[in-house]
Amino acid sequence: MEPDTAVMRTQVAIVGAGPAGLLLSHLLGNAGVESVIVETRSRAYVEARIRAGILEQSSVDLLHEAGLGERLAREGDEHRGIYLQWPHERHHLDFVDLVGRSVTVYGQTEVTKDLGRAREAAGQEIRYEVSGTAVHDLDTDHPYVTFTGPDGTHERIDADVIVGCDGSFGPCRAAVPDSAKRTWERTYPYSWLGVLADVAPSTDELIYAWHPDGFAMHSMRSATVSRLYLQVPNGTDVAEWSDDRIWEALATRLGHGQDGWTLTPGPITEKSVLPMRSFVQQPMRHGRLFLAGDAAHIVPPTGAKGLNLAVADVALLAPALTALLRENNPKLANAYSDTALRRVWRCTHFSWWMTTMLHQSGDPFDQQLQLSQLRWVATSEAARTGLAENYAGLPIGF
Amino acid sequence: MEPDTAVMRTQVAIVGAGPAGLLLSHLLGNAGVESVIVETRSRAYVEARIRAGILEQSSVDLLHEAGLGERLAREGDEHRGIYLQWPHERHHLDFVDLVGRSVTVYGQTEVTKDLGRAREAAGQEIRYEVSGTAVHDLDTDHPYVTFTGPDGTHERIDADVIVGCDGSFGPCRAAVPDSAKRTWERTYPYSWLGVLADVAPSTDELIYAWHPDGFAMHSMRSATVSRLYLQVPNGTDVAEWSDDRIWEALATRLGHGQDGWTLTPGPITEKSVLPMRSFVQQPMRHGRLFLAGDAAHIVPPTGAKGLNLAVADVALLAPALTALLRENNPKLANAYSDTALRRVWRCTHFSWWMTTMLHQSGDPFDQQLQLSQLRWVATSEAARTGLAENYAGLPIGF
Repeated sequence: MEPDTAVMRTQVAIVGAGPAGLLLSHLLGNAGVESVIVETRSRAYVEARIRAGILEQSSVDLLHEAGLGERLAREGDEHRGIYLQWPHERHHLDFVDLVGRSVTVYGQTEVTKDLGRAREAAGQEIRYEVSGTAVHDLDTDHPYVTFTGPDGTHERIDADVIVGCDGSFGPCRAAVPDSAKRTWERTYPYSWLGVLADVAPSTDELIYAWHPDGFAMHSMRSATVSRLYLQVPNGTDVAEWSDDRIWEALATRLGHGQDGWTLTPGPITEKSVLPMRSFVQQPMRHGRLFLAGDAAHIVPPTGAKGLNLAVADVALLAPALTALLRENNPKLANAYSDTALRRVWRCTHFSWWMTTMLHQSGDPFDQQLQLSQLRWVATSEAARTGLAENYAGLPIGF
Repeated sequence: MEPDTAVMRTQVAIVGAGPAGLLLSHLLGNAGVESVIVETRSRAYVEARIRAGILEQSSVDLLHEAGLGERLAREGDEHRGIYLQWPHERHHLDFVDLVGRSVTVYGQTEVTKDLGRAREAAGQEIRYEVSGTAVHDLDTDHPYVTFTGPDGTHERIDADVIVGCDGSFGPCRAAVPDSAKRTWERTYPYSWLGVLADVAPSTDELIYAWHPDGFAMHSMRSATVSRLYLQVPNGTDVAEWSDDRIWEALATRLGHGQDGWTLTPGPITEKSVLPMRSFVQQPMRHGRLFLAGDAAHIVPPTGAKGLNLAVADVALLAPALTALLRENNPKLANAYSDTALRRVWRCTHFSWWMTTMLHQSGDPFDQQLQLSQLRWVATSEAARTGLAENYAGLPIGF
């Protein structure tokens, strides 16, 4: 330890102030467990980072139960289902009819802001803009986190438990020795070009569109902001895609002009290319280090599962750590990795399935398999129900 | 035309005396339409050729309706479902509970024998052991078939319609010009080693087993004959697989000794390596040539769909040709290809899905996707129902 290190002490040191880290500190705080969060980015950056926008029923329920549902109830937009389409056919899948559960459109940015305000009100210690975060002594009962504060001070947090909520490229996942983990990864041969546009959505429900030119999706953030995606080749530069080219491709792939449906274009305010990747690291615990959210698993965005998986992890982890630290009962903590991974692999499979059903791979046989599967999902109640129960989400700890 | 050619005249010239060709001639005969069949193999060869063994409910119903169900009713073995298993877990899927339909174990050899006897009784003209079969003038109303009889005579059949029931490597499919067809094909990176054994099945229902060593399957032909399969690499020589090695691999993959279940070995009477391939040629009609069964499509055997698809094709084609030839009504004949292909692609997708869910591809991420999917099928009623409705089979012309 550097001689001028400032030492803090807490029960749970959380690395990462994204939705997983903030929600965990919130749930722990509600249960009387103290935590400190460290985050390499600024609060403004974290709250503006555009990510997912669909909450499963169980995520919504959990946010309400945790006292975080006030603005969500007011501004969140409940959806009964989605449209699944391919050229000349659009089918509505009504999740409420099929499985009795809905989804809610509410941006990850909004969840993060709500959490940030709630943690601020509770006096949560969050150290933003730190650097050089490292985790230590994970095999002991006295793990600790070191980092450098924004002013250059060397700091250290002694804790009973460390939780890595620091995403796929953070230090926590990497701190698990190779001999103690297995990882699985798949990089898909396509990316998404995602845009935000200041225009009312041209659809009441999300549209997932199969098209020979590539997948397209019409989502939304609010009554006045649309979120749209196009399948593009890996390595695409956003500069290749003018606003006009984007709207033209969206119109073609989403079926503008078919059966009287029109896509209304508008000013594009944000444009970015998202890679598509599946990743799982197992187990989700190493000694006194627990992993949650993207730190343990990444899914391609097609099934809208990333944020919901992070919420589900934390929903298991908060009571597990509470029992461990307040009652010295390790049962739930010991079960955490196996329990969380059941859902992780279910959602990893579902996200892969939605992704590979809807994107052009370049293989003409794949195209026919996709169309056959889409027709089956559209016409078979069993197939529709299978999609709905995965999309609307399984109960926590299923 | 060779000067010494013998000319026959019929309404429907059928190329191929496998189950598709025989059943078609039978259904046409029942409807008062005359046909002649030509076949390159001998009758003994055709009737002994070991192929599929599972009949969908709708195939069973059709055989009964066509007056071919007497021995099937007596000797066919109705099954409520299948077992789906992976190490340490075996789950029964009850198709009757899930979708109200069952399947029947009755070998293709038996179907072919029943058809052969029925056609013989009806005086059906079948020319076995012909060579050099070719089809001509398909774009006209006067197509014809030429071939050389077993005695070296050049022969010709003038017909109103030709039907290719001559499998994937026969002359009919190949006679459609490239400009008039599209084909799709996938060769799987594994084969099946199939064995027949003179031993009572060790299971009441078929077992589909996922195993890290490779897929295995326990099927049966009768109360005293078992049919078993092992996933093996492409290019496997049966000589590499002694009977002992086969029984040992089956015991491991099928879970001998787990939960008290035992696999009883017995004398192996037949051993062969089956490649795994998906193939579709579209459309299934070209002028006055219609394709049915393997001539138009091949599925890997995992979903037990090959024979059933042939029956379903013929079930559409017989009334279509009857209406065309007896009433000069081309409506069903014109709809045949599109109608048949809906089922063909559904079954092509299902067979691909079962195959890729159960076979080792060598990719560790695939393994986890497979296990997650198997667990989902075992625990979700929607997923189980989806498998059941495909396996037990959709209604003809769905």
